[in-house]
Amino acid sequence: MKTYKHGADIYTTAKNLGVDENSIVDFSSNINPLGIPQGLKETYFNSLDLCEKYPDQYYRKLLKTISKKEKISENFIFPSNGASEAIFRIVQTLKPKNALLTSPTFGEYEAALNSVNSNINYYTLKEETSFKVNEDFINYITEKIDIVFLCNPNNPTGILVNKNLLEIILNKCLITNTYLVLDESFIDFLSDTKNYSLVDKINLNKYLIILKSYTKIFAIPGIRLGYCMSSDEKLISNFKINGPPWNISTTAEKCGIAAVNEEEYIRKSVKYISSERKYLIEELQKLELKVYPSKANYILFKLNKKIDLKKSLEKEKILIRSCYNYKGLDISYYRIAVKEKDDNKFLISKLKEILR
Amino acid sequence: MKTYKHGADIYTTAKNLGVDENSIVDFSSNINPLGIPQGLKETYFNSLDLCEKYPDQYYRKLLKTISKKEKISENFIFPSNGASEAIFRIVQTLKPKNALLTSPTFGEYEAALNSVNSNINYYTLKEETSFKVNEDFINYITEKIDIVFLCNPNNPTGILVNKNLLEIILNKCLITNTYLVLDESFIDFLSDTKNYSLVDKINLNKYLIILKSYTKIFAIPGIRLGYCMSSDEKLISNFKINGPPWNISTTAEKCGIAAVNEEEYIRKSVKYISSERKYLIEELQKLELKVYPSKANYILFKLNKKIDLKKSLEKEKILIRSCYNYKGLDISYYRIAVKEKDDNKFLISKLKEILR
Repeated sequence: MKTYKHGADIYTTAKNLGVDENSIVDFSSNINPLGIPQGLKETYFNSLDLCEKYPDQYYRKLLKTISKKEKISENFIFPSNGASEAIFRIVQTLKPKNALLTSPTFGEYEAALNSVNSNINYYTLKEETSFKVNEDFINYITEKIDIVFLCNPNNPTGILVNKNLLEIILNKCLITNTYLVLDESFIDFLSDTKNYSLVDKINLNKYLIILKSYTKIFAIPGIRLGYCMSSDEKLISNFKINGPPWNISTTAEKCGIAAVNEEEYIRKSVKYISSERKYLIEELQKLELKVYPSKANYILFKLNKKIDLKKSLEKEKILIRSCYNYKGLDISYYRIAVKEKDDNKFLISKLKEILR
Repeated sequence: MKTYKHGADIYTTAKNLGVDENSIVDFSSNINPLGIPQGLKETYFNSLDLCEKYPDQYYRKLLKTISKKEKISENFIFPSNGASEAIFRIVQTLKPKNALLTSPTFGEYEAALNSVNSNINYYTLKEETSFKVNEDFINYITEKIDIVFLCNPNNPTGILVNKNLLEIILNKCLITNTYLVLDESFIDFLSDTKNYSLVDKINLNKYLIILKSYTKIFAIPGIRLGYCMSSDEKLISNFKINGPPWNISTTAEKCGIAAVNEEEYIRKSVKYISSERKYLIEELQKLELKVYPSKANYILFKLNKKIDLKKSLEKEKILIRSCYNYKGLDISYYRIAVKEKDDNKFLISKLKEILR
């Protein structure tokens, strides 16, 4: 039986501490600290009356919006109930016999692959090279491998694969008839997204599937919206067939449409997070923690002391992510989100108390 | 490739007519005409801020609420993104080789079964007996049959299976090791729910799975919430494993919790619909249409004239459900929802014009 392993469990922590959920400062889930943009809040309120109708089962207006934004055909898009639904739908449709994952990476790929009994191979990301994917990754992509998952930037490390290497990987996948699922759920947090995203390759490569999420950048994990893209229309159509109609709520569809107007909010968020990330990394380093050079809205670090940091911080009502259950990491690794200035300062002050 | 066959496509109709969706009087989807109850509207508005957090991946508060209401263990409940997600999750977990459906019935059972290549057997409901399920149904449940879907009241007929026969069917399923999926999505529209529901049998029979929906009775198809129940904890756990975490939005969870306080709204709705259904049936009969004795919030009728009634009504911006694509029905059958008094009168007046 799968045990859920996600970071964002303020509910269990609150229950254990006997406090209200809202009193916990949550560094364990990687959500935009600027919160839901005003435009989406208005959309949410305006969508209630529309919820008395079934959503459009083809989600035509949402697909049109994404199509324009991504410069791809509407038939290349599968809108999903969070990116996690897309992961399961991809795997349950393709039923890959053999899969390749990096270790560590986001746990949901493995959970989905386990649901169809895939054999999972791992490419170990080495601590010595800050968990970077190297060129030897392509040696692991053989004709036996049916699907590769790559998370860029990777979760929980925040480390990027550069575009040149991604293209080499994609080319290898074409030769071996291997699907490359590129999870770009956190890519909007980069200031130079275009230098890392392969979305401009979608139209050319039927083996490329790209995942996107609204959850993180727009701070709407409770609304549930993501999508995946592929130029294989038949495949996209099969993703739709292999699950229920109306998989996205009306509210999520309307927020997805409205989000296209939030470019200024994204720019502001990227700038803010970049500055706060810099602050956090510097302060963590001052505390003699080993910090990996994240480009995302979260930071992985290593503690070389026998302290249960998660537990110590919980006493201060701060929740961080222990990475003990990431394959390839252990109890000495922790991940924190980049949050608002005051929260970040609060975390650092408490870390100082605990670690000194 | 599956072509979607649902009734509620005001979007396509509006597009074809070149009018706004909201200008269409929709008799094609079976939603409570009293609309979203005030309590749920308030819950919707109050849930926005909570959407900045991930939902509780165990949906503990929702499960607790349903558990109390249904008098079953929290471990017996799989909360789903609309009842349709539960249908797919059941089928994709059990992967039945052979299934039994009534004909006609709700199309999503067949869609889900097709996604795992099940062999589907049909029990034909006969027009002469108003599409009633008879005792000979148990002869169709053999050891070869892995799963039976029964919709009670049935969609699109609105016809009920009485509890005595349901118990006989359930007993037969226990003998043949066959799962009985009883879809009670519309059962809350009855004034005597207890005389038809098998929810009191859940604790005793591991082969019984009951489906429920919030969509219809609370008029929230755009919010997406349903659940299924089974006393087989391992099975419920497998439903959860075989799909993404956070399958329900925060808003849906909160509305599901708030809905338990809407007993008075349900009573009012049942009374209102009963009265309006009586009016509609009488008026339809006056127009010499053959009307089947529905106990639900929708009515099936037959027209013995060569008129495309759906098309004729569309010109009046009224959308009804043509039943031509229900297995076992044909172009002479139509289904209408029981709506608000003014809408119902408007429909009848237009039908009079068309049919005379």
